[in-house]
Amino acid sequence: MPRTKGDHEARRRDVSEAVWRVLAAQGFGGLTLRAVATELGATTGLLTHYFPAKRDLVAHALELLDQRTATRPRRAAGTGLAAVRAALLDILPLTAEATATNRIWVSSWDAALADPALSGEYALKYGRSRDRLRDLVATAQGLGELPPGDPARIAAGAQSFVLGLVVQALFAPEAFPPPRQTELLDDYLAALVHPRPESR
Amino acid sequence: MPRTKGDHEARRRDVSEAVWRVLAAQGFGGLTLRAVATELGATTGLLTHYFPAKRDLVAHALELLDQRTATRPRRAAGTGLAAVRAALLDILPLTAEATATNRIWVSSWDAALADPALSGEYALKYGRSRDRLRDLVATAQGLGELPPGDPARIAAGAQSFVLGLVVQALFAPEAFPPPRQTELLDDYLAALVHPRPESR
Repeated sequence: MPRTKGDHEARRRDVSEAVWRVLAAQGFGGLTLRAVATELGATTGLLTHYFPAKRDLVAHALELLDQRTATRPRRAAGTGLAAVRAALLDILPLTAEATATNRIWVSSWDAALADPALSGEYALKYGRSRDRLRDLVATAQGLGELPPGDPARIAAGAQSFVLGLVVQALFAPEAFPPPRQTELLDDYLAALVHPRPESR
Repeated sequence: MPRTKGDHEARRRDVSEAVWRVLAAQGFGGLTLRAVATELGATTGLLTHYFPAKRDLVAHALELLDQRTATRPRRAAGTGLAAVRAALLDILPLTAEATATNRIWVSSWDAALADPALSGEYALKYGRSRDRLRDLVATAQGLGELPPGDPARIAAGAQSFVLGLVVQALFAPEAFPPPRQTELLDDYLAALVHPRPESR
């Protein structure tokens, strides 16, 4: 019965979209069956079919966040320093979509820090992200585009910089419009490229 | 009746301590009258005397966070670049107390982003913090300890760096013990001190 299956999947997508919109507007603190039902124009009863308990709804929301982050549009990266810059720009809230995703990530930190298992997953996730950045940094060093130095340490610094810029831009979008964010990142990268004289 | 007043104030302090411990362990997402009552070894009924509604409890928690941040121990700052470094070190989770306060700040971001009035307050708060840092940067520039350049832009970058380092250190305290955090901050400051040659 392909048509029924298609309808079912379309409905699941609608539910996921509604969950995403509630998260983008109200964060995990506002994520309830009732809020999703209102967003969807459906009954809470219908939603309990998808999410028997609150924790199922939260688990689905966290999955959505991972999926959308993994499949988000990315810049054509090139290689070397250009790839480092592209990877960092891909994190920043430079578009409405990236702003929503970042807002939901920041919102998820409260729940994640309160739950040891989830907190451990987040530590691994950010660790993998630093490892990818470290490899890009090492490649840029190999090409002579970044000076020598522990690439893991440089990656940890760069990831700190963009995460903190995300937080500031979410709270003060007028003070941190996309060109300002890009300018601040480019200042940061320029300082990486030209390190203190004694370390050369 | 000084004794009764003293008892009353001691009880208020106990309640505040219990709210703080719940926040440090479970964040705003876990802040309920029941959790505070359990922490305090009291009845929920007693607590409704202090907090008639959930929003009163949240408001008290946000006040506590502001108070404890304002009155936290700070490094003897000196002046110039030493004062910039001290102000940034004062933000990082380098002690158990600073870790608890930062964990509660990060936890509060979800609620703050979901509430336009609170979000506006946070934007002002972080803006004032950048302004203070900007003034310290300008003084360091006046002393010739930092190169010329827009001090507000340098302050925005530095605040981004420490906020992101806070988030990473909270999720991965083993990967970011205090000496590592300090080392990363000092890398950042060293790059500020020695800017790219063409901007000299």
